[in-house]
Parts: sequence; C-alpha cells; structure tokens
Amino acid sequence: MGIMDKFEENREIKKDEKYMKMALKEAQKAADINEVPIGCVIVRNDKVIAKAYNKRNTEKNVLAHAELLAIKQACKKTGDWRLEDCTMYITLEPCQMCSGAMVQARLKRAVIGAMNKKAGCAGSVLNILQMQEFNHQVDVTRGVLETECSEVISKFFADLRESDKQ
Amino acid sequence: MGIMDKFEENREIKKDEKYMKMALKEAQKAADINEVPIGCVIVRNDKVIAKAYNKRNTEKNVLAHAELLAIKQACKKTGDWRLEDCTMYITLEPCQMCSGAMVQARLKRAVIGAMNKKAGCAGSVLNILQMQEFNHQVDVTRGVLETECSEVISKFFADLRESDKQ
Repeated sequence: MGIMDKFEENREIKKDEKYMKMALKEAQKAADINEVPIGCVIVRNDKVIAKAYNKRNTEKNVLAHAELLAIKQACKKTGDWRLEDCTMYITLEPCQMCSGAMVQARLKRAVIGAMNKKAGCAGSVLNILQMQEFNHQVDVTRGVLETECSEVISKFFADLRESDKQ
Repeated sequence: MGIMDKFEENREIKKDEKYMKMALKEAQKAADINEVPIGCVIVRNDKVIAKAYNKRNTEKNVLAHAELLAIKQACKKTGDWRLEDCTMYITLEPCQMCSGAMVQARLKRAVIGAMNKKAGCAGSVLNILQMQEFNHQVDVTRGVLETECSEVISKFFADLRESDKQ
C-alpha cells in the first residue's frame, strides 16, 4: 500500500469514527430516558441527514427503534423511499426488523459499533444485509468504536441490575 | 375428528376468510392509488384494531408497507409495543422488514393469503416468523383466500404492463 492510499484509508477511518461518536451521543440520550441505549445517524454526501435514538418504551411503539426513526427522517429529508447513496452509523448491530428495513431502503452502507451475538441480523444470527437471495445488498463495516459502543450498553444493564437490587 | 371438532374448525376457517376479505378490501384501496396492492388487518379478541394498505410511493417512505402501518396503529390502540394477543391478516407473504417487525412485536399469529416466492420471509426465502434462534415465534396459517389474494397482485401488474405499452 502506497503512502497516499494509507493516508486516504486513515481519513476514512477518522470519518467513520466521527459519525459513530455522533451515534454514541444519540445512544446516551436514550439512556437518559431509561431506554436501551442505541443510537443511529444517517449520512449522505458527507452531511448528516438523520439522527435518532431508541424510544420503544417511551413511544409504546415497536417501530420506534433508532434505525427506523432515522430511516423515516431520511426518507422525509430526501423525498424518496430509496436511500441508495446513504450510510447508516449504528452503535449496535441491527435486529431482523431494522436490517430488513435497511435492505428495503436500498441503503448503500452500514457502519456498526458493537455486535449483538444473540439477536443481531448483520452477521450474528443472520446476515440479512448481505443475502444474495434479496434484490439488494448493503456494504457493511463492523467494529468502529466497538469498545465505547459495547460499554454504553453494558453500563446501562449494570445500572439497571443495581437499581433493581435497591 | 368428532362432529363438534369439525364444526369448530369450520367456524375458524370462516372467521379467517372474513378477516382476509377485509384485508383484500385494503389491498384494493392501494391499487386504486397505483400502489402495489397489499392489505393488512390486525385483530384482537375478535375485534379489528388496525387496517392499512401499502402506501410506499405515495408517502415516499420505505416504512409505509401495509404491515408496518397496521402495527403502528395497533400499538397506538393498545398502548403497548407488544402485540402478544393479536392476529395479523395479510394478503401477501411479508418481506424481511415486516416479518422482523412481527417478531419484534411478539405477534401471536399471522394469516397469509398468497406467498411471495422471490422475496417473502414467512417461508419462501426465509422463515423469519418461526426461527428458533429468536426469542419469539409467530403461529402461521398460509393460503387463506390464496386465489383472490394472488389475483389482486397479478391483475395490478398486468394492468401496469398494459398501460406501459400504450
């Protein structure tokens, strides 16, 4: 790899980390209202067009996962149900519903923080984002700010267990 | 099978057909506004709590599939993100996003009209509704008013091809 390729690669990593930090801020907003802290940001042409955090309990709506709330915003912003030139940053590997929505929206790329071994559908239980049987596949980058993304979730559940004890 | 069992079974089939006819009416509403005709009804304790039809193009929103619109209504009606005692009637086998939402909502039962061999995720490409790996499985009945449910879709695409020719 030449020095310019190395430079370019480093620039892309820094960019991914920048947007993942924004997704982490969203996750923190969820934690602040006692929701499982998952945050999401959608970027198009280097501009943030949507950001959201999990509100399933607050809104009493199963569709209020961070990813679906962000997809809805992004469709509104672009005036199109297709998000073909968009990248989604998510702190946690998406579930079967959200992975499905990402394929349906023909999202270009997904950048994932922590994996969700028991329920994730971007490589753990299934890899819905990249099944050849469907009419679209999403490019996937995993493990961006993985430690921070894992910690925000494990801290939330540790705090929950602690408050349950009291 | 005793005569009373036979009677009860027949009663259940009639009930499924009654609600599937309502879902078909929803599908027709979609066709009337040039959307792919897919209709959905959600029933709880023998009462219809939600009905919806596909509006993806009209709303320019990938989340505006019939099933998600109905799930949103049902959550609002019941005040809960869980739809554990609900049955969904759908004219066409759901996609990966909608199947995922049905599992996330912990839906009790899904009654499906026509199958969707190339993209359906309730038995065709995948069977997301009944994977043992997830924390919930949905009871599934397939083929209720299958001919009518298939025809509404094939007529829509035949008309579309006809109008494209002109």
